[in-house]
Amino acid sequence: MTTHVCLTARALGASGVIIANTPDKEVESSVREVSKRFGGTFQIESGPEWRHVIRNWKNGGGKVVHLTAYGMPLPKIIDEIQAVTENLLVVVGSEKMPGEMFKLADWNISITSQPMSEVGALAVFLDWYHSHSEFDLSFPGSEMQIIPSKDSKTVKPITQFVK
Amino acid sequence: MTTHVCLTARALGASGVIIANTPDKEVESSVREVSKRFGGTFQIESGPEWRHVIRNWKNGGGKVVHLTAYGMPLPKIIDEIQAVTENLLVVVGSEKMPGEMFKLADWNISITSQPMSEVGALAVFLDWYHSHSEFDLSFPGSEMQIIPSKDSKTVKPITQFVK
Repeated sequence: MTTHVCLTARALGASGVIIANTPDKEVESSVREVSKRFGGTFQIESGPEWRHVIRNWKNGGGKVVHLTAYGMPLPKIIDEIQAVTENLLVVVGSEKMPGEMFKLADWNISITSQPMSEVGALAVFLDWYHSHSEFDLSFPGSEMQIIPSKDSKTVKPITQFVK
Repeated sequence: MTTHVCLTARALGASGVIIANTPDKEVESSVREVSKRFGGTFQIESGPEWRHVIRNWKNGGGKVVHLTAYGMPLPKIIDEIQAVTENLLVVVGSEKMPGEMFKLADWNISITSQPMSEVGALAVFLDWYHSHSEFDLSFPGSEMQIIPSKDSKTVKPITQFVK
């Protein structure tokens, strides 16, 4: 599940992910391996306590979005979020998210006001946030590249010359 | 993971889900419970062999989309998919998807040509397929309804009178 959150975040243009509370070196290394192979500068860390992460983020001038079925519908709020110039932290979690999170977030935002996967919610949020143009993102420094195909798996190795 | 696929499919307007190969009564009943509480007519079944599902679907005149990092980019193909009048089966799976699936699908479609969660891919696909208007879907017959809120969990019980 955590890996799915990370891969979704990376593919849809997030700069990185912080896995709160639970150190998970296995997920860290598998996501780093993906970045090494497929490029980009996605950052990952795991372990810090969640309140600490949010406090730090806000102290650094950042803003916090919490994705939850109970929040305000994305279409009503997306313009406001896209206009944010500060760094944005998007918080997703399980059903067991503490109620306190609702007060700490600058925005509580819902994808459909229905019970929803946090991975699905994150995907839709990032897609909207990037105005549906994340297909044009580049992931520099990759060892291989997927070549879109109608009917097969086509991967091209990238030869990189380092002086 | 399977539950996340189901909840994403339901929230984003799919009519139902077929979990191939592995009967899973637990996921079936938890998803049915969500539909009972939050409404709608989402169908779920589990167990049938995957080739059998696809063959049946095609024999019934339906079309098949396979979401895979290796497919054609969604933006290039979404108009074609939205114009399909036949029933649409969207296939998602893990990395271990058999190569045969690429040939059986009418379209192999990628969300970003990067390693990606199938839940995230499904979410973006359905959002685009519904022209980003799935926030207006209704889920009739619910026992409760989430009332969008800026900073709290607000759920309204729905009293239904049955003659």
